[in-house]
Amino acid sequence: MHAIDGKAIAKKIEDEIREKAKDKEIKIVTFVVGANEESLLFADLKDKACKRVGIEHEIIGFDLIKQEEFEKEIEKLNEDEHITGINIQLPLPKDLDYNRLVSKIDYRKDIEGMHPLNLGNITLGKEEILPSTPKAILRIIDNEKLSLKGKNAVIINHSKIIGKPLAILLLNRDATVSVCHVYTDDIKKYTIKADLLITATGVKGLINEEHIKKNCIVIDAGIKKENGKIYGDLDEKAAKKALAFTPVPGGVGPVTIACMLENALIAYEKIHK
Amino acid sequence: MHAIDGKAIAKKIEDEIREKAKDKEIKIVTFVVGANEESLLFADLKDKACKRVGIEHEIIGFDLIKQEEFEKEIEKLNEDEHITGINIQLPLPKDLDYNRLVSKIDYRKDIEGMHPLNLGNITLGKEEILPSTPKAILRIIDNEKLSLKGKNAVIINHSKIIGKPLAILLLNRDATVSVCHVYTDDIKKYTIKADLLITATGVKGLINEEHIKKNCIVIDAGIKKENGKIYGDLDEKAAKKALAFTPVPGGVGPVTIACMLENALIAYEKIHK
Repeated sequence: MHAIDGKAIAKKIEDEIREKAKDKEIKIVTFVVGANEESLLFADLKDKACKRVGIEHEIIGFDLIKQEEFEKEIEKLNEDEHITGINIQLPLPKDLDYNRLVSKIDYRKDIEGMHPLNLGNITLGKEEILPSTPKAILRIIDNEKLSLKGKNAVIINHSKIIGKPLAILLLNRDATVSVCHVYTDDIKKYTIKADLLITATGVKGLINEEHIKKNCIVIDAGIKKENGKIYGDLDEKAAKKALAFTPVPGGVGPVTIACMLENALIAYEKIHK
Repeated sequence: MHAIDGKAIAKKIEDEIREKAKDKEIKIVTFVVGANEESLLFADLKDKACKRVGIEHEIIGFDLIKQEEFEKEIEKLNEDEHITGINIQLPLPKDLDYNRLVSKIDYRKDIEGMHPLNLGNITLGKEEILPSTPKAILRIIDNEKLSLKGKNAVIINHSKIIGKPLAILLLNRDATVSVCHVYTDDIKKYTIKADLLITATGVKGLINEEHIKKNCIVIDAGIKKENGKIYGDLDEKAAKKALAFTPVPGGVGPVTIACMLENALIAYEKIHK
């Protein structure tokens, strides 16, 4: 058993980006709407990460904004040649249509990898700009030197941001992939056979030692706040049983931010070629 | 046990299209390169289907064509307002890059549903133009009045044309989805638990009665020619054990062609709105 050091992986990625970003005028924008605590926290983490690697970052905040106006703001930034990357901080207020907003971003500037063209390219096997969390999970798998071909991978999450694109990315690497979620009758039937388990439910301690086999690698992208502490989906005994696991905090989180920075570099290169 | 009548489902779809296409000038083009037997057969089936529903269809054939030239031909048709739908018949000669070709098609005219923007929209949950075979499979499931929520679906195929988009489509409907393929260690471990099994391998008789549980619905999109006869992936005894199954031929095939025609109608409407 060992805990995977997400901070160390993130640092390595950030060191590379800092080097590559040196002579480039990269400037990214994060839109934050509604100023809820979670959005502001993430936007702030992005801001600090940008500072660390020398990427300029602007947070554009709205208390309230209508769909149409928001789309116009995005179009302005698409045309602004000083802006090389755009991302919309989630969660958004419910009256805003995220799909339509993200589709408005110039796909080359889409540093969250959520533009349909970028997502569709993944299905075609053309991996260019990837959604940050799935990309971070791939990085962690690479870091463990785990070959995915023929491996039994189980994902507990079927959102458009994590589970769906991740399933395709793992299939691109010839893993056998099962995707479970809240409507799955008995997740244990799936998880117990996993060589690789990726869980992202936000249910504290959902995965206990009975859910996993020995030698399973568990990547925990779940986040649950309770009394000021942050918990993942994996409980302590399960973590001990696993061959390797990502702790929460300090696992997937920092790597996700680093992967977003790497997307900012890729976006810059797409625009300038 | 009952065999699902793909021809009847296709006829129903075609009857609807014929009615809707009546007052519209729909014209689609199928590109065929290399003139191998399989390509010509499929192009001919599309041609006959178009005639049945009153859609104009042109087959543009090349013995040999370079990537660049092919892309230019596509661009010409994108700009031609009389052409409302374009599709590239597979298989293609190996020197041609299908991903790049399909990305060149105006996504609104992409009646095979393989443009990355159309594929990516599926991941976002926006289902507009769907790849024909996965779309046909959804139609067959609907026709069986099978609710997918919480069901255990297993797909044996992880291609960009069938398995990957189908996995996302089934996840959009809250099925638990497992995707197996040639690198899967033991497919039986997965298939035996399936409420819904979709197989598309082209390995004659791959699925026998030991692979499936009673009450499983099996959709067989496999095609294997042997001595002039066509076989699916499912053997006879398995077909008898299943709650319902699609025969080969006469199952998924005709519905797929009908779904391509329906895409032609959707494409027409996208262009004219």
